[in-house]
Amino acid sequence: MRLGVCYYPEHWPQANWAADARHMAETGITRVRIGEFAWSRVEPEPGRFDWGWLDKAIEVLHDAGLGVILGTPTATPPKWLVDQMPDMVAVDEQGRKRGFGSRRHYCFSHPGYREQAGRITRAYAERYGNHPAVIMWQTDNEYGCHDTVISYSDAARLAFRDWLSDRYKTIDALNSAWGNVFWSMEYRSFDEVDLPNLAVTEANPAHWLAFRRFSSDQVVAFDRAQVDILRQLSPGRDVMHNAMGFYTDYDHHDLGRQLDCVMWDSYPLGFLEMFRFSDADKRDYVRQGHPDIAAFHHDLYRGCAADGRWGVIEQQPGPVNWARNNPAPLPGMVRLWTLEAMAHGAELVSYFRWRQALFAQEQMHAGLLRPDGKAAPGLGEAAQASADIAAIQGSGELPNAEPVKEAAIIFSYESEWVTATQPQGEDLSALWANFTAYTQLRKLGLNVDIVAPGTDLSGYAMVVLPCLPIVADGLAEQLASFSGQIIIGPRSGSKTAEFSIPDNLALGPLQAIFPAQVSRSESLRAGVTHQGDGWAITRWLDHLESDAERELVSDDGMVACWKSANVRYCATWPEGEVMAVIAARAAHDAGLAAVPLPEGMRLRKAGKLSFLFNYRAESQAIPEALQGQMVLGDRLLPAAGIAVLRTV
Amino acid sequence: MRLGVCYYPEHWPQANWAADARHMAETGITRVRIGEFAWSRVEPEPGRFDWGWLDKAIEVLHDAGLGVILGTPTATPPKWLVDQMPDMVAVDEQGRKRGFGSRRHYCFSHPGYREQAGRITRAYAERYGNHPAVIMWQTDNEYGCHDTVISYSDAARLAFRDWLSDRYKTIDALNSAWGNVFWSMEYRSFDEVDLPNLAVTEANPAHWLAFRRFSSDQVVAFDRAQVDILRQLSPGRDVMHNAMGFYTDYDHHDLGRQLDCVMWDSYPLGFLEMFRFSDADKRDYVRQGHPDIAAFHHDLYRGCAADGRWGVIEQQPGPVNWARNNPAPLPGMVRLWTLEAMAHGAELVSYFRWRQALFAQEQMHAGLLRPDGKAAPGLGEAAQASADIAAIQGSGELPNAEPVKEAAIIFSYESEWVTATQPQGEDLSALWANFTAYTQLRKLGLNVDIVAPGTDLSGYAMVVLPCLPIVADGLAEQLASFSGQIIIGPRSGSKTAEFSIPDNLALGPLQAIFPAQVSRSESLRAGVTHQGDGWAITRWLDHLESDAERELVSDDGMVACWKSANVRYCATWPEGEVMAVIAARAAHDAGLAAVPLPEGMRLRKAGKLSFLFNYRAESQAIPEALQGQMVLGDRLLPAAGIAVLRTV
Amino acid sequence: MRLGVCYYPEHWPQANWAADARHMAETGITRVRIGEFAWSRVEPEPGRFDWGWLDKAIEVLHDAGLGVILGTPTATPPKWLVDQMPDMVAVDEQGRKRGFGSRRHYCFSHPGYREQAGRITRAYAERYGNHPAVIMWQTDNEYGCHDTVISYSDAARLAFRDWLSDRYKTIDALNSAWGNVFWSMEYRSFDEVDLPNLAVTEANPAHWLAFRRFSSDQVVAFDRAQVDILRQLSPGRDVMHNAMGFYTDYDHHDLGRQLDCVMWDSYPLGFLEMFRFSDADKRDYVRQGHPDIAAFHHDLYRGCAADGRWGVIEQQPGPVNWARNNPAPLPGMVRLWTLEAMAHGAELVSYFRWRQALFAQEQMHAGLLRPDGKAAPGLGEAAQASADIAAIQGSGELPNAEPVKEAAIIFSYESEWVTATQPQGEDLSALWANFTAYTQLRKLGLNVDIVAPGTDLSGYAMVVLPCLPIVADGLAEQLASFSGQIIIGPRSGSKTAEFSIPDNLALGPLQAIFPAQVSRSESLRAGVTHQGDGWAITRWLDHLESDAERELVSDDGMVACWKSANVRYCATWPEGEVMAVIAARAAHDAGLAAVPLPEGMRLRKAGKLSFLFNYRAESQAIPEALQGQMVLGDRLLPAAGIAVLRTV
Repeated sequence: MRLGVCYYPEHWPQANWAADARHMAETGITRVRIGEFAWSRVEPEPGRFDWGWLDKAIEVLHDAGLGVILGTPTATPPKWLVDQMPDMVAVDEQGRKRGFGSRRHYCFSHPGYREQAGRITRAYAERYGNHPAVIMWQTDNEYGCHDTVISYSDAARLAFRDWLSDRYKTIDALNSAWGNVFWSMEYRSFDEVDLPNLAVTEANPAHWLAFRRFSSDQVVAFDRAQVDILRQLSPGRDVMHNAMGFYTDYDHHDLGRQLDCVMWDSYPLGFLEMFRFSDADKRDYVRQGHPDIAAFHHDLYRGCAADGRWGVIEQQPGPVNWARNNPAPLPGMVRLWTLEAMAHGAELVSYFRWRQALFAQEQMHAGLLRPDGKAAPGLGEAAQASADIAAIQGSGELPNAEPVKEAAIIFSYESEWVTATQPQGEDLSALWANFTAYTQLRKLGLNVDIVAPGTDLSGYAMVVLPCLPIVADGLAEQLASFSGQIIIGPRSGSKTAEFSIPDNLALGPLQAIFPAQVSRSESLRAGVTHQGDGWAITRWLDHLESDAERELVSDDGMVACWKSANVRYCATWPEGEVMAVIAARAAHDAGLAAVPLPEGMRLRKAGKLSFLFNYRAESQAIPEALQGQMVLGDRLLPAAGIAVLRTV
Repeated sequence: MRLGVCYYPEHWPQANWAADARHMAETGITRVRIGEFAWSRVEPEPGRFDWGWLDKAIEVLHDAGLGVILGTPTATPPKWLVDQMPDMVAVDEQGRKRGFGSRRHYCFSHPGYREQAGRITRAYAERYGNHPAVIMWQTDNEYGCHDTVISYSDAARLAFRDWLSDRYKTIDALNSAWGNVFWSMEYRSFDEVDLPNLAVTEANPAHWLAFRRFSSDQVVAFDRAQVDILRQLSPGRDVMHNAMGFYTDYDHHDLGRQLDCVMWDSYPLGFLEMFRFSDADKRDYVRQGHPDIAAFHHDLYRGCAADGRWGVIEQQPGPVNWARNNPAPLPGMVRLWTLEAMAHGAELVSYFRWRQALFAQEQMHAGLLRPDGKAAPGLGEAAQASADIAAIQGSGELPNAEPVKEAAIIFSYESEWVTATQPQGEDLSALWANFTAYTQLRKLGLNVDIVAPGTDLSGYAMVVLPCLPIVADGLAEQLASFSGQIIIGPRSGSKTAEFSIPDNLALGPLQAIFPAQVSRSESLRAGVTHQGDGWAITRWLDHLESDAERELVSDDGMVACWKSANVRYCATWPEGEVMAVIAARAAHDAGLAAVPLPEGMRLRKAGKLSFLFNYRAESQAIPEALQGQMVLGDRLLPAAGIAVLRTV
Repeated sequence: MRLGVCYYPEHWPQANWAADARHMAETGITRVRIGEFAWSRVEPEPGRFDWGWLDKAIEVLHDAGLGVILGTPTATPPKWLVDQMPDMVAVDEQGRKRGFGSRRHYCFSHPGYREQAGRITRAYAERYGNHPAVIMWQTDNEYGCHDTVISYSDAARLAFRDWLSDRYKTIDALNSAWGNVFWSMEYRSFDEVDLPNLAVTEANPAHWLAFRRFSSDQVVAFDRAQVDILRQLSPGRDVMHNAMGFYTDYDHHDLGRQLDCVMWDSYPLGFLEMFRFSDADKRDYVRQGHPDIAAFHHDLYRGCAADGRWGVIEQQPGPVNWARNNPAPLPGMVRLWTLEAMAHGAELVSYFRWRQALFAQEQMHAGLLRPDGKAAPGLGEAAQASADIAAIQGSGELPNAEPVKEAAIIFSYESEWVTATQPQGEDLSALWANFTAYTQLRKLGLNVDIVAPGTDLSGYAMVVLPCLPIVADGLAEQLASFSGQIIIGPRSGSKTAEFSIPDNLALGPLQAIFPAQVSRSESLRAGVTHQGDGWAITRWLDHLESDAERELVSDDGMVACWKSANVRYCATWPEGEVMAVIAARAAHDAGLAAVPLPEGMRLRKAGKLSFLFNYRAESQAIPEALQGQMVLGDRLLPAAGIAVLRTV
């Protein structure tokens, strides 16, 4: 695994560049990402290009032995372009234009902007496509950041009608698929279809789902245009895009398929603060992040990448600026996050950013260097990580030589679109069902891969569908031939591809592997539970008609888990102790050697190596069950400590 | 009392209709509501009508012996109509058009839509007005659902100016009535008056009150046009409309006056979750609903109906789809709700819906049947209720033969408009003051009627005005001649009809029956209380200048209740223990035999019958004070249990 | 100190005026403010003036010996003017026009309205500028009330571009100052600059800061036009404006500089309820207000006034109408608030309002009289205060003869603009850092002045900068020559004047007096603390590189307070016990005789007089350390009690 860094030469005097480059190299960094926000410097006026500074910057970096990852600048079109095409911006759900003044001020459906994005991409690629320093491209930056996938512009409406016409062919087919007879919502032509926002009350969920699919497809097509240009003009270079955390507005499986590599931007402390973690977690892990935040995304994006190639292109190196509260990482965490990515198979961890900016929106975002150029705490940890990586690689074991397959989670992006459109209970989210299920598997010390429906499942001992409302064609058949253990979570198979209820009710196609019908589903307020033996039914309860075994039954007779042959059905929300019990039973039945880990410790097996990470702020010992030769660290892991064992 | 069901033949294959109709009849159902959302099927293109399917559906239902309640489809105008008149939609308080894509996408003030609504109503009535199956009409559906009474459209502004001109005659009269000299808000003509939204800060409360009265009048006029057409073209049939729960944006007394019957849509579990009940109530009654939700509306809408004819046209039969959380009713609750409506005098309880839809917005809303056509749990309870009704009716006592009059609550819709416009304390609401006062009366086992000001009070032993800021002309005189006990709640008589302070201060006209002036009012934060002996002053405190007796005084000298002759003044918010004490004293003085009921048990007396309902999830015994011959059930009521006693 | 009252003769029959005036005089009132909302009565139609009623009102007041404070009516332009210039209204951040119907419906940048405001001001001044009754003018009313300083109108955009051009001269200078190279935000001309709202995500903080400075300048310029007219046409009269509480959208130091006197509107109970006080404070001080609310503003606005002349032009006399909850003051509080203003040096306390209005928006706002003209509780307290003032003044000591200087807080309005734009931690606010620091100083019994940067500091024993991100030119040098104790709070010196990070990092220019660099800052969630000995680090932590003494170190090694020579650096949020400890140490080192006061008691020293105020609802004794001759009250202060001691 390599180390990299994000750098903005345009922010600093040219005189500093060479020293910066040398300093990077000395730290153990070999990759540097540049250029992704530099449009106004590259093309300060329409058609007038100023390449000089960028030529120089690439040359300086190259001279220091750094490989350049070059970003196309389409996330930040300059003001002159917006003034030329004021309708190129996105429109929010309330109908307001989302104007210039920050970034991502464009609508994916705007034909004029698509053309301009192609033009500037081509200009970049023509200039640097064959430059020896350039080894990889990044398209745009963080598609969807600041909720920008979905736009309610006129351009989007027109494009949506075309998309619908392509998908449904006839308006009668659309009316029938969506059930538009309900509430007299029937259309006479595709030209009558508007976007689903600003209806008096909720629009048809099928309308929303189609609009979400369309919006995701627009992102993929926008990206595709750049990929095609780059592949043509910059042969032999990889193309990647940087994904975000807990973000689902476009289908990353679709995007990943057209990329060489999927990277993501890892900000564990910001994510802990901003997403739906408990107050206790937000307190206990305030300077570490919840122990599954980074790993969940590593395992998710590895599954999105065409050939499993992935990395972290932006790694938090200190406090950030964008969360409600922005604490500093516990000493050691930057190193821990870096090595954890290695354990999960990353090819790159690149820190964001080299040097903290003096100005503008991100001036409070830490870099490896302080704004005055002195070392920030992250820098030393990056250097230490570099040495650690060398030590691990020098142990004779390449982490990814032999992937250790244990559990696979099957996740689809449209699962989250379904639950976001129709939560049916407060805050219910398929994405988070996947996360909470993942957590329980990882607490057992299991390796988990998060994969798209249709992925080859051979080699796995167990498969988990934490919440998969729409079951893709062929998946039930595939699972029927899977001999390991299967856990099906609530709401799985409860919707057709067009967001209706299957004729045979839930579990829909999954009835092929589990003999049950969901006769009724209910969502439960926080505080309403059905207690079992050390576990509880919370948030959701599917009532089944089934002859399957009632494996977990609450004190008042509610069934939390049903079992039939090698399949379990988790009828309540897959979280907390109830999911822990179900996961442990399935792992046992699957013959997996679960190693229950101390609170906040995580294990990742890579080839013959076992990586252990202590997310707690106190020391903790590695469980006795784990033995091997110490490659790195000690059996007593300090706060933010790491150990690597080699199986002998 | 009859049972009915809501049915959407247009959602199901025609081949199923006859079996559905037979199944309804076998369940004990004799009424079926159809057609209210079917405009796009009846008139798929402008002026082209397709009656065939509806003719057939009515015929099939008729053949099964079911009486049809036919809804006019004006709540769901088709897309082609909206495209013809894009300004027919309502505009929200922020100025956004409330577009097509769900339902109720029209503004009550739009002249073009009024004409179209008349046209389609006439078409329905001409086709089916004399059909022997059609025994009742429903106008539109749930006026005001999704906050649609109030529209800030241009059409509304123009209509409001006309309405103001009618009411005030001269602009000087308006300026004077509203006190527009304040803040230089004076107008020179009615054409200068805008709607009260989007002012820099709160607009004049008199402006708001006028706009609310206008908005309510627009609903009544819109409905009136349909009623007139239906009366003309469908002689001998009843006309009703379906009201909602805890909803006050139009004056239901005004609407009820022009209808034959007022029906309402009863969703106790959804209402518990979505309205202002305590967390404890939301937990304890999660699968039952608060024990006063249904009864409060029964007693309220009975008082709205011209001749006291009312019913439940939509009864929750299982989990719904629209609340934050959607639990399933406790077994027995569907039956309990049904029989409770009977106890309160309903002529119909109709379940919503026959069969759960496979598609669109309400696919997660339970029916009596599951989407696959099998029985959902509600169906058996409906059938049981049908048998129970027969048993009760067979006991020789008709529940409504001899109404048992005990307490009357006087409520006006404009009371809520006043407190919503000027809460003066957090969440203070006249409607909820009425509800909490109602609860305390019902816990004493009293029968309560909720009536409009001006209703004949003879026969009642006590009258309660929980919060009546505007006292209608003549009411004080009427109360002066009332010999029973009277309780006046806070803020009553505190406003003139034009939302100013009476010259003689509060209690305004009520000073005729209670010798006091409110010299100062204050609202109190949650947690700020004045404790009395087992009760507390909360939320509100009127300070009185009065020689009346200080009946309830807090430990620190604040007066919670004053008494003079047969009138009590509750100076604090009429809720909890303080209202319980006041209600009990008044009931005692009125000679009513109060029967304090166990928590969650309710009693309704109907002729010689006493109905008891146990809303708790545990068994509870009927209090010893209640004796009689068991017509139904047992003295130990199980969870969700019912008993009926006959006085001997 | 004089007493005054706000009066609206236009709301009451002319026949009442003389009696009202006599009643005021009898109460001890000598000043009356009128006219500030009367435009529609003075100019009922464009160009047609009706002065008769106002002539008469002034005459009647004059005849009773009352001095008139006359308000220009520009806060409430009449409807006919808005209809003439519909674009004169402000536009909110979401792009919505803020229309007619209440008050303050104008944009400060609208040239047409500026002209009209000059015209009506000139008309008032020409009519009454030399009237013997008129002794003071108020410009407009509460600039900024209802968030009206900042407008996103077209007029504002155009004026902003001009303002930018004046400030930066060239667009390159602006791009450079703001760091617009970041995210390609560079402009090619001032005409490309838009307002910072409605960007996709946060706009550049430098953009926001410039826009806030511009918006403040527009208020000052708008006011200046009126001041100039009034000075020209009404020689010898004072001009003042009424500021609000906890309000910072315009720079009150700038405004105060052009006025003769700064007044403010004091509503302690409303402010307690609406601003960020703890639930415990909101409960314990529900009828008193937090004990520092009034005094903080007295000390703040005294520092804004050109010659230190200030007063309270609107004093809460009972419950108000505009807070979430509106309790009544504890008996005695109106008197206490009045005398506390005297202790802090006010020249006037004027109650709002004389008589509670019968109608419109403020009908629930108490006056000294009830709406029916009888005395409300406030009236007696005002009369008592009048007698108390006479007694104190008769003691031979004029409170303000010899100001007692102890501690000075340095506050700038742009501090709050910086933290509001970039809080970096939840709810972090420079204004509230100043308030919480102020509280800890006052609990020690210290006199505090709140002054603008640049104020002469001679005579003070200590200076506190609770949170001063931008350090004005010259301030560091001034502090370097200050020999008393200095406390610097977090984030001070962390920003340049253009909202970037200083090249030498924080403390920027303050490094001249404190040898440290902030190497990293972090914000901490509520509940994340570092405990020290009786104090805790909360919300914020600056990590310093410094050889200074680590004065307060938490149990886990974090430094809360650093000390070097006469300067302390508070590295955590300046609130609660940690600020109490730091303030006490600094006061000790400064040689100040701190007198720790009982909870809720406050002390203000004025010449030889010591005023003591008991904000608790229970009696409390004056600390033994305070001795002197009793001028007023007793050593045991009752609830809401006051005592005045004279040093012997």
